Amino acid sequence: MSTPSRRTSKKIYFGPPPGVTPGQRFKGHTELHAASVHRFRGQGISGTEHEGVDSIVASGGYAADRDEGNVVIYTAMGGSPDDDGHITEDQELVGRNAGLVLNEREGLPIRFVRGLNIRSGKARGGYEYAGLYLVEEHWSCRTERGHLMWQFRLVRDEGEVVPAGVAVEIDDDMTDLERATARFVTAQRRVRNTRASRKVKSIYGNICQICRIPVVVDGDGAPYSEGAHIQALGEPHRGPDVTSNILCLCPNCHVRFDNGALLITDDLKVVDGFTRELIGSLNVRYNQHRIGVDFLRQHRSRWADRSQGL
Amino acid sequence: MSTPSRRTSKKIYFGPPPGVTPGQRFKGHTELHAASVHRFRGQGISGTEHEGVDSIVASGGYAADRDEGNVVIYTAMGGSPDDDGHITEDQELVGRNAGLVLNEREGLPIRFVRGLNIRSGKARGGYEYAGLYLVEEHWSCRTERGHLMWQFRLVRDEGEVVPAGVAVEIDDDMTDLERATARFVTAQRRVRNTRASRKVKSIYGNICQICRIPVVVDGDGAPYSEGAHIQALGEPHRGPDVTSNILCLCPNCHVRFDNGALLITDDLKVVDGFTRELIGSLNVRYNQHRIGVDFLRQHRSRWADRSQGL
Repeated sequence: MSTPSRRTSKKIYFGPPPGVTPGQRFKGHTELHAASVHRFRGQGISGTEHEGVDSIVASGGYAADRDEGNVVIYTAMGGSPDDDGHITEDQELVGRNAGLVLNEREGLPIRFVRGLNIRSGKARGGYEYAGLYLVEEHWSCRTERGHLMWQFRLVRDEGEVVPAGVAVEIDDDMTDLERATARFVTAQRRVRNTRASRKVKSIYGNICQICRIPVVVDGDGAPYSEGAHIQALGEPHRGPDVTSNILCLCPNCHVRFDNGALLITDDLKVVDGFTRELIGSLNVRYNQHRIGVDFLRQHRSRWADRSQGL
Repeated sequence: MSTPSRRTSKKIYFGPPPGVTPGQRFKGHTELHAASVHRFRGQGISGTEHEGVDSIVASGGYAADRDEGNVVIYTAMGGSPDDDGHITEDQELVGRNAGLVLNEREGLPIRFVRGLNIRSGKARGGYEYAGLYLVEEHWSCRTERGHLMWQFRLVRDEGEVVPAGVAVEIDDDMTDLERATARFVTAQRRVRNTRASRKVKSIYGNICQICRIPVVVDGDGAPYSEGAHIQALGEPHRGPDVTSNILCLCPNCHVRFDNGALLITDDLKVVDGFTRELIGSLNVRYNQHRIGVDFLRQHRSRWADRSQGL
């Protein structure tokens, strides 16, 4: 029973490659495949639209990519990049690109492999397994030449293992690799709290500025809310952690806002990001809370494909 | 401007004590106070009901406490413990006990100090600053003698610092200590995802089993949902990571359920945890998803003060 199954390296699985540690080097795709790090030989991204992406081998095909170690800005597939890595057509959020969005929603980790000493799209120095990365955000923008480009921020995260003593569901038809990774837990969603977030939440008494529905969590009627950064923190958005860049939202509206399913116009109307229907107006206590229009514009521009004309 | 303000060690602040590293030893409360680790001399818990708890010095006053290093089960204040640390009256979720619930909601970190070589409630070996801990959960239970006891699970977490280059709000009236900790970010809420969670969410197509409202996050109409463990994972609940212990919920209902604002009866009715009003019935696809009644009972028993008679 402990002999690894032959099919383990072909079926999708999420989490750490058994026996491989971050920093470990590999000569090429064949070695990466044999070690169950990357299932697809010769392709940079492994996964599907409906299961998510389980591994990426980055070797510099797109000029807009950025690798800063623990943070990677990763450009979507497609768009017919030219020799300099500039896309020449619009990209679409389909196939494995849509799979990366699923990774973000579900917190599915990606085994990230970095090509070393890349020249002309070839990793002359071999490959390094960098560890597990989560998709923290995705957005679209227009390139200088006017093409729609989708990008993803990947952030390193080693995940957790279910504590010993906790029963884990094991099916009879699971492969050894699946059994080995069944205990693996990821953070599907992480809500960050800062001093400025707490200030905004207290201005609104934890009542969502969009739906105004209190998520009551204790007997005194105190609601729960979250501080949503309009222009996101971190690379590449670099939104500031100030009250004019933060909304007080319920968890449901927060998830919708962060995914561009809700957009906010300059005159503080809330609009459905897909149908562009007017949903309502943002509740704002103007004497205590000034909202930065530039931050709203930056948030809308992250959804370039759906915010035109707003 | 760089001289620390005199009042810094008296005002509440959250986050790491500047210049102090985990593992550092202190002789007693006076030293802990001087280093801005613990503001209250001679009291084990520092904070308020409406601001939260900023530090704890544990020195073994309650028999039900457990210290497993990175996980601590901490008993609430009050209840008139006897010499053996057993409470002799009901405890109430008021004052700093309620402050600990605020820590959980907001992700406010606690500077945790461990008494060393404790005998008869005295730390004969001095104190060790153990690091920052988050309140992951709270619950109530009845002791053997029938008294209501509140407990908290504290889990070690070092938090994050806002990335360099991100503007942080600095007020003119902030102390140097407040400026030093303004960049500190905590995780207010972390949603864990496991293989079993993903299975349950897919059974319900990501539609909340309680409110049935789809939290739509993409143009194809795909909703977002979370897997809620009924009997929580981890110490001391030790719920298993199996589908019969997991519900598919929207983020708002998930927060309510985890805080005991929603309870579920043996016959799968959803009840308001405070008013005990019937809210509706749980949507269950019986042919694909069996829900463990024992898990529902354990969840209700975590809210012993409000689930009697259900």
